[in-house]
This record gives sequence, C-alpha cells and structure tokens, in this order.
Amino acid sequence: MRIILDGMGGDHAPASVVEGAVLASKKIEHEICIIGQEELIQAELGKYKYDAAKITVIDAREVITNDDAPVRAVRSKKDSSIVKGINMVKNGEGDIFISAGSTGALMAGGLFLLGRIQGIDRPALASVYPIMGSKASLLLDAGANAECKPNNLLEFGIMGNIYMEKVLGRENPRVGLVNLGAEAAKGNTLTKAAYELLEQSHLNFIGNVEAREVPKGACDVIVADGITGNVILKLTEGLAWNILQVMKKKFTDGMKAKLGAALLLDKIGELKKDFDYSEYGGAPILGVKGPIVKMHGSSSANAVMNTILKGIPFVEGNVVETIQNSVLEIEEITLSE
Amino acid sequence: MRIILDGMGGDHAPASVVEGAVLASKKIEHEICIIGQEELIQAELGKYKYDAAKITVIDAREVITNDDAPVRAVRSKKDSSIVKGINMVKNGEGDIFISAGSTGALMAGGLFLLGRIQGIDRPALASVYPIMGSKASLLLDAGANAECKPNNLLEFGIMGNIYMEKVLGRENPRVGLVNLGAEAAKGNTLTKAAYELLEQSHLNFIGNVEAREVPKGACDVIVADGITGNVILKLTEGLAWNILQVMKKKFTDGMKAKLGAALLLDKIGELKKDFDYSEYGGAPILGVKGPIVKMHGSSSANAVMNTILKGIPFVEGNVVETIQNSVLEIEEITLSE
Repeated sequence: MRIILDGMGGDHAPASVVEGAVLASKKIEHEICIIGQEELIQAELGKYKYDAAKITVIDAREVITNDDAPVRAVRSKKDSSIVKGINMVKNGEGDIFISAGSTGALMAGGLFLLGRIQGIDRPALASVYPIMGSKASLLLDAGANAECKPNNLLEFGIMGNIYMEKVLGRENPRVGLVNLGAEAAKGNTLTKAAYELLEQSHLNFIGNVEAREVPKGACDVIVADGITGNVILKLTEGLAWNILQVMKKKFTDGMKAKLGAALLLDKIGELKKDFDYSEYGGAPILGVKGPIVKMHGSSSANAVMNTILKGIPFVEGNVVETIQNSVLEIEEITLSE
Repeated sequence: MRIILDGMGGDHAPASVVEGAVLASKKIEHEICIIGQEELIQAELGKYKYDAAKITVIDAREVITNDDAPVRAVRSKKDSSIVKGINMVKNGEGDIFISAGSTGALMAGGLFLLGRIQGIDRPALASVYPIMGSKASLLLDAGANAECKPNNLLEFGIMGNIYMEKVLGRENPRVGLVNLGAEAAKGNTLTKAAYELLEQSHLNFIGNVEAREVPKGACDVIVADGITGNVILKLTEGLAWNILQVMKKKFTDGMKAKLGAALLLDKIGELKKDFDYSEYGGAPILGVKGPIVKMHGSSSANAVMNTILKGIPFVEGNVVETIQNSVLEIEEITLSE
C-alpha cells in the first residue's frame, strides 16, 4: 500500500506532518509518500532516522491555503499537493490521500478529481465524536452539506455505518438521527422524511436522538444535516475548551486550590485527553471514488501518525467499494417513497 | 401586580412551587396567586409562615401533564391550572403566568388563549444560555419552531433583543446568527436569507456565529431555528452533565485524588453552579399577547423564586407592548425583500 500524505496542509506543516510520518513508518510496512515542496520536506526528514524505502517524497510546488476559494483552487493549482495527491489516488499511484489542509479544497478535490460514487447524491465529511469515558461515535455530516434532502441523511447513515464497522471496528453500530425529541413525529419536514427512509433501511436504526444524549454515546453513528452536525461538533469543542479554561482558572486560585489541583494533576490530564481528537485519526470524506481523510488543521505528529494508522483499514476494508455496493439499497428505499 | 403561578406543573409540584412562592413573597410586595388543586396547595402552604395578603390560592381541578397532546389538552381541560391561569392573564385578572408544566401546552395556551401578537408570524421559546464565568446569553428559538422561515429568525432576533434589554438589563445586546462559519455567504437558504434580514434591522447584529463561539459568550442574543436552538441547549446540558459525571468519577478514584478533590470542593461547587439554570429565571414565550414564562420541569424552590423575581421586569418593562411596537420594523424589512 502507498499512503499519500500532504506535506503542506495544516498549521504546523511540514514539521508535524513529517514527524508523524516518521513515527508511523516505524509501526507499519507500507510506503508513506509525502507530497509538497521537496526541499522543505527533506529538511524536516533530515532531522530523523528513517527507512528511506518506507518514506518517499514527491515534489509539488503550489500550496492551497484556507483562504483560497476551494473549487477555484482545485481547478487552477494543478501543481499543489492536494490536487497532485488526489490525482495520484485516482491514477492508482496511491491508495489513500491524507491532508490537514483546507476541508473545502479536499471536498472539491474529491468531487472534481475522483468524482462522486454513482448513486450517492452528496458525499459527506464524517467526524469522530469523542465520548468521555467510552468509545467515540461517528458524526456525519460534519459541515460539508449545509442544505440536505432526506435521501442525503439516509446516505450519511449508510456510509457512516460502513466506516464504523470496517475502520473503527464497531459491530452492528447503532445509528441515530439528531432531532428535537425521541418520537418519530418530531422535527421538521427533513427529519420526518429522513426518519422514514432510515427506518426502511437494513441499518440498526435506533430512531431520533436528542442532542442531550449525544455526548453520552447514545448512538455510534450520529446522522444530521451539515449545519446541525457542524453545530454539534463545534459546540462540543467550544464548550469543552471553555469548561477546561474555567476549571484551570478556578483550580489555580489560591494556595489550597493549587495544592488540590497538584494532587489531581494526572486525573485532570485524563479529562483533557478524553477530548483529544488526535487519538482518533482524522475525518474521512465518504461518497467519493477513493479514500480521502481530512486531519485537524492543528494536528500534532501524534495525530498524523494515528491518522496514517487508521488509513490502513480504510483502504484494506474496501470502504469505497462497500459504499458503491450499498447504492442499490439507497435507490430501492428512496424510489419506493 | 398579580403574578399567577402554576401550582401543578413540574416534577416537584406543588411542594417546590409553593416554597418558591413563599421565598419570593418575602422579597417583593406583589401578590402571588397560586393556581391548582387547592387542598394540595394549602397543605404545602401550611408548612410555612407567610403573608396571606401576598400569597393567594385559586382552585383548578384538572392537571395537564407532559403526556397530554398539547393542543387537545388546552382545548379540553378548561379547568386546568394552565388554561385557567393563562385566561386570567387574558382577562386582566393577572399580569403574568409562570409554570413548570408542559412546554407544548404553554405554547398552545399562549397561541390559542392569548393569541399571537399581530405581525409576529411565530412566537418563540427563549431560553437563558449559561456562559461560564460570564453573563448568560439568551437563545431563541429553543425548540418551539422546528420549521422556520427567514422572517421568523428576524422576529426571534428582535424579540430576544427586547427581552435582553428590558428583563436581563443588557444594553445594546450583540445579536448573532448560529451558522457554519462567520462569512455572510455561509450556510443554507434559510440562514443566508435570515442574515440579510437581520443586517437590515436596527439590531446590533454581529453576523454569523460559529457554534464553537457560543459557549464563550460571543453574542448576547443567539438566533437559531428551533431544531438548531434545541440542539445547542440540550447538547450543552448533556455535555456539561457528562463532564461533571466523569470528573466526579475520576476525582474520587484513589486516596490522593479524594484528598485533592476535598481541597477543591468549593471550586467544584462553583463550576456546577455556572451550569445551574435555576439562577436565571425561566424561559419566556415571546410573541404572544401576554407574559408567559416556562420554568424547567425540575425547578427547585430557588429556581421558582428567581423566576418570579425576573417576571417583574418582564411585566414592568412592557416587553409585550414593545414587541408589538416593533412589528412595523419587521414588516418593513420583510416586505422590502
């Protein structure tokens, strides 16, 4: 297997990307090919000992930034790491593309360079949702599709179910639809129609899930339109950050508190770790004709390594082909409506 | 002023409702009239010393529960505390109705008994959103309107702004629209159109707000459709609960941790208090022709007292009349589109 890694994406590129590749290369036998401005990547690689047969570099001169308009950037910056990397997957020169770059550009690259899987109306960004003290859930759509139709939510459920089984190793995942209340009749036109479609599928659909239950791990696959999904993800991030900040402030206020906090240092560290996205390995773009994974922009070397490791079952589990094979069911359900 | 208090609503009724009324009556000169099954309320009142001129009781035999279909219950249970109480406000026998009962029944009662303010298309449930370490924000719609049009979001912004100024005392509140990203072009058809309407208003509209910024107090009035608003509120509740649970478990795991937690006891208490909705005084239903406030079903006596106290500026600030007077602006903006 040849894993294509974007050397230029993210806040700490290429340093943490290269370090993450070196860490991963010590654990796996596959080739990791880092794409980007060669001299920068080689300079970083020079800092480490590594097996030159397992880490290679391919030059790409252009860089797509978060400020670039995604579609335009993908069309015009042909020599960027994102465009070249995704094209390598398309041409069979690579098996998966991993990047901490612009989500929009990765989505546009997936759509225009690889193409949608026929029968999937809207590819989705799936994001791991950390559950404190338990196994993470998978949330989709995490924000790629602001406007959704009921069949899109069915697709999200089916694609998320496949990724959850094949990559995250959860058997028969519980699929839930985020809604106002648990009853089938709750919600708006979109959620009511999506409920009916999901109920007809082969999925282990547990029905509507109130947002209150999501952080408690009420379902393994969390289905929502892109705005709701984005709100869930970002609010969780913001609230957890805020709670930890306020906690830090309070726990360092006064000698007695400081002493108490010192005794709890390892426990507080564990709390923080529960919210650490870097453990879970990136957000796959599902529904395009090849594996693409988006990492958090601020990914550490450890996060990069974990994303590379999780990329292997994404490829070996034939997730893309399995989604392709599920299209018939989606069509049968939506056409029977 | 005569405050009508539902003696039968909520998980701890009538005990905590009556106790809250007694506590409030010691702080204010207004009459608090508790409505519900008289013998139950009198039995509770008998436990306290109170000024009989300031706390009165009106009998209502029926009870609307959370299991009742709201519209049907409001139409059929004429002798319930909710229907009788709201009718007292309608007939000028009371100035405000406060209840910890069914949200749906209160909304239906507001709509069918008091009626919508002419020019307001959709009344909203506004909910105080606690911001840790800072002043609370106000979120609307909190879940009463699953299906929203752009003009509804404009109405939510305008009504929320008035309540924030008049009742919560925040000058020139910052109004934000929850969305995928900060740019005006972000989001779906609904948020894009709502953005344009809000921008034309006299409000201190700060634009789109990402969910990540909401818990940090990015805006004073948080505008969202009912599903998104409900997700924000419930997710915050669920996540905070979960974090506190996990913290409790970790902080009692081992002697060293227990000792640390003992030293931090007051600080942990402060953390919990930051999420305590009972401090803020209930959720007003805005857009109907009279003041109605919904309290949390599990409201403590302290929460009931605070809701009664906040009810006074709701009445004295002429919130309902001010909303009525703002209708012209809403019409001008929406008709010019």
